[in-house]
Amino acid sequence: MKNYIQKDEWNIIEEGFDPALNKISESLFSIGNGRFGQRANFEESYTGDTLQGNYVAGIYYPDKTRVGWWKNGYPEYFAKILNSANWIALLIEIEGEQFDLNNCKISNFKRILHMKEGYLERSFIAELKNGRQVKVNAVRFCSISDTEIGAIQYSITPLNFSGTITITSLIDGDVKNKDSNYDEKFWDEVYQEVKDEQAYLTLRTKKTGFDVCTGISTSFFCKREKLPIKSEAISRKKIVGNRIQQEVTEQVEYTIYKYAAIVSSENYERSELINACKEALKRATEKGFENLLEDQNQAWKKKWEESDILIEGDTAAQQGIRFNIFQLNQTYTGEDARLNIGPKGFTGEKYGGSTYWDTEAYCVPFYLSTAKQEVSKNLLLYRYRHLPKAIENAEKLGFVNGAALYPMVTINGEECHNEWEITFEEIHRNGAIAYAIFNYVRYTGDHDYLIDYGLEVLIAIARFWSQRVNWSEEKQQFVILGVTGPNEYENNVNNNWYTNLMATWCLSYTMEVLTYVAEHSPTAYQNLLQKTNFNRETETSRWNKIIDKMYFPSHDKLGIFLQQDGYLDKEQILVKDLDKKHYPIHQNWSWDRILRSCFIKQADVLQGLYFFEDNYDIETLRKNFDFYEARTIHESSLSPCVHSILAAKLGNEERAYEFYLRTSRLDLDDYNNDTQDGLHITSMAGTWMSVVEGFAGMRVRNNKLHFNPMLPAKWTSYSFTIGFRGSKLNLSIKKSLIKISNHSEKDLIIVIRDQEHRIAGKTDIEVSSFKVKTDEG
Amino acid sequence: MKNYIQKDEWNIIEEGFDPALNKISESLFSIGNGRFGQRANFEESYTGDTLQGNYVAGIYYPDKTRVGWWKNGYPEYFAKILNSANWIALLIEIEGEQFDLNNCKISNFKRILHMKEGYLERSFIAELKNGRQVKVNAVRFCSISDTEIGAIQYSITPLNFSGTITITSLIDGDVKNKDSNYDEKFWDEVYQEVKDEQAYLTLRTKKTGFDVCTGISTSFFCKREKLPIKSEAISRKKIVGNRIQQEVTEQVEYTIYKYAAIVSSENYERSELINACKEALKRATEKGFENLLEDQNQAWKKKWEESDILIEGDTAAQQGIRFNIFQLNQTYTGEDARLNIGPKGFTGEKYGGSTYWDTEAYCVPFYLSTAKQEVSKNLLLYRYRHLPKAIENAEKLGFVNGAALYPMVTINGEECHNEWEITFEEIHRNGAIAYAIFNYVRYTGDHDYLIDYGLEVLIAIARFWSQRVNWSEEKQQFVILGVTGPNEYENNVNNNWYTNLMATWCLSYTMEVLTYVAEHSPTAYQNLLQKTNFNRETETSRWNKIIDKMYFPSHDKLGIFLQQDGYLDKEQILVKDLDKKHYPIHQNWSWDRILRSCFIKQADVLQGLYFFEDNYDIETLRKNFDFYEARTIHESSLSPCVHSILAAKLGNEERAYEFYLRTSRLDLDDYNNDTQDGLHITSMAGTWMSVVEGFAGMRVRNNKLHFNPMLPAKWTSYSFTIGFRGSKLNLSIKKSLIKISNHSEKDLIIVIRDQEHRIAGKTDIEVSSFKVKTDEG
Repeated sequence: MKNYIQKDEWNIIEEGFDPALNKISESLFSIGNGRFGQRANFEESYTGDTLQGNYVAGIYYPDKTRVGWWKNGYPEYFAKILNSANWIALLIEIEGEQFDLNNCKISNFKRILHMKEGYLERSFIAELKNGRQVKVNAVRFCSISDTEIGAIQYSITPLNFSGTITITSLIDGDVKNKDSNYDEKFWDEVYQEVKDEQAYLTLRTKKTGFDVCTGISTSFFCKREKLPIKSEAISRKKIVGNRIQQEVTEQVEYTIYKYAAIVSSENYERSELINACKEALKRATEKGFENLLEDQNQAWKKKWEESDILIEGDTAAQQGIRFNIFQLNQTYTGEDARLNIGPKGFTGEKYGGSTYWDTEAYCVPFYLSTAKQEVSKNLLLYRYRHLPKAIENAEKLGFVNGAALYPMVTINGEECHNEWEITFEEIHRNGAIAYAIFNYVRYTGDHDYLIDYGLEVLIAIARFWSQRVNWSEEKQQFVILGVTGPNEYENNVNNNWYTNLMATWCLSYTMEVLTYVAEHSPTAYQNLLQKTNFNRETETSRWNKIIDKMYFPSHDKLGIFLQQDGYLDKEQILVKDLDKKHYPIHQNWSWDRILRSCFIKQADVLQGLYFFEDNYDIETLRKNFDFYEARTIHESSLSPCVHSILAAKLGNEERAYEFYLRTSRLDLDDYNNDTQDGLHITSMAGTWMSVVEGFAGMRVRNNKLHFNPMLPAKWTSYSFTIGFRGSKLNLSIKKSLIKISNHSEKDLIIVIRDQEHRIAGKTDIEVSSFKVKTDEG
Repeated sequence: MKNYIQKDEWNIIEEGFDPALNKISESLFSIGNGRFGQRANFEESYTGDTLQGNYVAGIYYPDKTRVGWWKNGYPEYFAKILNSANWIALLIEIEGEQFDLNNCKISNFKRILHMKEGYLERSFIAELKNGRQVKVNAVRFCSISDTEIGAIQYSITPLNFSGTITITSLIDGDVKNKDSNYDEKFWDEVYQEVKDEQAYLTLRTKKTGFDVCTGISTSFFCKREKLPIKSEAISRKKIVGNRIQQEVTEQVEYTIYKYAAIVSSENYERSELINACKEALKRATEKGFENLLEDQNQAWKKKWEESDILIEGDTAAQQGIRFNIFQLNQTYTGEDARLNIGPKGFTGEKYGGSTYWDTEAYCVPFYLSTAKQEVSKNLLLYRYRHLPKAIENAEKLGFVNGAALYPMVTINGEECHNEWEITFEEIHRNGAIAYAIFNYVRYTGDHDYLIDYGLEVLIAIARFWSQRVNWSEEKQQFVILGVTGPNEYENNVNNNWYTNLMATWCLSYTMEVLTYVAEHSPTAYQNLLQKTNFNRETETSRWNKIIDKMYFPSHDKLGIFLQQDGYLDKEQILVKDLDKKHYPIHQNWSWDRILRSCFIKQADVLQGLYFFEDNYDIETLRKNFDFYEARTIHESSLSPCVHSILAAKLGNEERAYEFYLRTSRLDLDDYNNDTQDGLHITSMAGTWMSVVEGFAGMRVRNNKLHFNPMLPAKWTSYSFTIGFRGSKLNLSIKKSLIKISNHSEKDLIIVIRDQEHRIAGKTDIEVSSFKVKTDEG
């Protein structure tokens, strides 16, 4: 837990430089544009504690698996997002001394992430060992309007001397992943070129053979005039650049503009790569820094119009939610169905891979409401494209007949996780992938998706469940043995309620969609039957049997569903009664102790109740919430948001707010002492959900948006914009008033607290507000 | 499964050389003397497939743990038995060509392990690429009468040429472990010396700082005359030796004698090491090869008198049991309580560590009956010495108040296993350590052991169980959650019947021993209470509650104990109905599939029934045996022996014999396709148990030996010698007759089929035999 980021509604601000916090700030001040991104490393040399990180979306390396004890079925490789060429490097020598903040006296240090405008700024005054003082202001961004471009404006003013400075502007491709299993470097050089102010470097990943070409152009200005300096070429293995020497005058500001272009073989033919890079760089240099930044501001303005949440009366909460929205929009822009949302985005290496079930469970809802439909559709198509690999994956584990098990972690569709209790057993992820299809169609009404892609995925998933259950002679019911539920503080359990629920729901939903497709597109239906070799009668007859006879652990007296068989045999201790010295238990307890404790890492039964709340009466929700919430220790970043939403649903504003704060400032306040490794990108979507689905109670029922708003006591008001089936509306919730603005031309029907309202195009309505305790109230 | 070893009663014989089998033979023909040992590598160069292996007892290296995903509580190091300096190397150049069987035409190749006499012999004729033919006969052994000495007699006869041969006799210390986690070498050189015919090399292990000094002396003979050759010194990093050049004459035999001395800092001060090595080498050279071999024969004669089992009418069975007894006696001689029995002995690296619960469960009974009492006592003292580390280990996992959890695998008392489901959860091993104390005292009557050592260990183990159980409010009973039983094809299960049984038994037995010690040695008792800070009243009052209220899963209708909660929810398939293409499932199935199947790797419920058979009626034994045996897939080398013993107990001679054969020739026939990695040393003790406890039905009850013999149909007779409380007796079982010879001076009372017999000193009795179907019969 840290508290050094200044509270501000639109900016993330660090004042003063503390080297011990540098890696945390490098994560927090990360910038990206969906196509590439980077940690907030310094441009100049820094010999202090730092984690260098530059990442290009979709470019990965399959690192050879490292395990202690091999289990049959483990994947041989773990696909990792690569640390790629560093294009920001501006090494500066001042009067013969390497400029390095680790060796300077620093004052007036300030780092600002301008979230509204989408750029990073850093300024400070530094005194070198040789006594020379300089003032620096550095601005940089990854363009979201032209996603092949990055730009830096680095201004330096000699404060107490005139003399010589040397600037070495580099592309440094001699980088490696800190998490490399066998300490290998993953890149080979295939091309380099240095010419005048420009340098180009093409690197190729080993094994996967991705080419990434980076180009830079560096120029030196004084008083808005470009200085006519001849630069010296730097050309070493995997490192290229230009060196400039310049006499500088005391108290005069000099500015370096460095533009970068980054293109990859994912988007160009290899043979076209260098030309594409040169063209992108030309676009950047021709436009110039100020215009590029203006474009950036405009592009971000549009993003914020779509996705901002305004909170009044609570700066910390306002900053938290905006930080989350900003980082999500930096990570994934949704134009490319080959990409997905890595758990750390472009802010760190940890966890490798890029896609967990987080995407389906937490991120899809955010993009559904705040971006055009194509964005969430692309997230779904990502899985559709991986279906053949998911079928292969299931075959590897002994499944047959086109059953699919989607990987726990993946980049290219292949599993790249290697803990048996997760890789092989945390199979509920398959349910989340089906649920995302359901959720997407429920929100968008895009039933064609089911016909074109959805049903094929659903059949394969249903087949998996149909084979994964087994009949218990003893129980005379179907059971699902040996699983790990969402609560990863249990491994290899029997009859995880959530998993059993998802399994039967998948079967039901697939049958529902089968009927829909058969009715609405008989040809597509027939083609699919053939393609998947699907025998509707025999296969669905087993599915129906399973649905009829599935076993669900529960406890009548307590009125709860049981997380799994035997859960009540555990010693029942509440989290509130656990001495805080044990927190976090995953750092203080051995794994077996965690496993046999009743403590829950993240929503499990409650995740199921969140997904399907309409199937349960409020009393059931309350009993389960009260029971499980008391035992949940929230050591996953994905945990608080679901609890916040359920607490809001149950009218428990205090708890809902408490959970909200925990999720929204998780990284800003470094709750879990791990922000230095990178940000928790996917859980950021959960924060958005806490406000929109939690406090505002948004649901989609029968093709209509429903709201059931509450206002946290601390807030004066909050408002947000939602896109829904071509309409755009803004909700503003105040103590006394709920205002809904229909920004679209056409009429909109929404339901507020079970009361339907029609809002004509381009008009507002106001509904008087009152505090609602529960859904019943 | 292989079938290339010739059947012979006393010898292991390989005729003809097949390079594809070489690593298997290297394991099978391994030799050792309890202090050091080696695989049957060739003396001369061999560039074909080989696993070089020399091992010195007790010398290990803590290799840095390698895991995919770190779990809190994992040990940082995995202690490994080290591949140590190779002292057998005799590199031979014949007329300028390196002599290497991989590049020769080979005929008359024969390898014989002379088990009766305790040496390895290899002979062959080879033609080199240069056309030169030689005949070779090589004999070598590790002396068990002087355990610091090894000796080689290597005879070579030029068959079709006279010319020059060069012999380079080396100590090659530049070796590494094949299973090194990070490809490190584990030894540093600290000293070397080469002088005349002799060479010395002292190596020190990294981190652990063990010094091992090896010395060799090499001489060249022709027609029993030593040739006066000046040897050239070889001195490289970690490699020392002598080179001899000699003109040889066609059809004349030349013999190289190479003696080795191996001493370590485990037995000498570092400063004394080189002198000790020189003295040992002097003893060897002075005695000479023939006398050393004669000593070896005599020493082995004595071993066989103590431990041989004679089987008539079944050469395969005879060879199998002798091979097992031979390898056990080569591995552990029981003079040193710091040593133990590694699962691969001196025959390979695999599994690292040296001590599993195999020692207590399988090896102790063998040494109890076939070696002097001190040997099994030393095995127990090994654990006594590790008690402080076992307490530390438990503390690391959150236990308090002197509770001990012995490691799953260890060399020096520290845990060195790193799979959470084993390391943290396969806790039944603690029970086996208590059981070995009980078993030792039951067999030897050495109650003083309880006073001096046993009780202290028992208290610590009982404390562990007392903390590891928890009260289930739901069941209103004590439960043990999250364990792995002996059947490692289940992980993290609840209420493994065997574990729950061992837990309560440990508590009961500890209280029994408390009472005994309090009565028989009040002072020792008081001292121990103080030392362990033991509060008898409060602690045993909880123990009694646990014993009273422990939950044991069972199924009334089937009349069986349940392996664990929920076992009957699994799909119940019998092994006989599983298509053989799936065998072995641990190679063909993913881990999750194994876990949720009903298939059992090794005896689990049946292990408990084996340990405590007198507590159960024959019908219970039979029902459980029939149920679980049908589901057991025996993919552990430790599985068949327990089944063999129980089948014998139940009068099922056919099954008993089938299981016996499987265990006794496991390595000779390479059942599991893994003999090349080394032999399954600990399961060899199980083979002995199958005969003595199985067919002969030996038990100790009320301080008397009981027998209930059966004769496998295929055998004419079998006989074995047993030591019991200072007596030595031989049992010989024929179809019509059981003969018991009392080799001791004093009278002996034994019970045969519930009938007591007194046998006067140095006399025999004969009891008429009859086929007994079951215990009831």
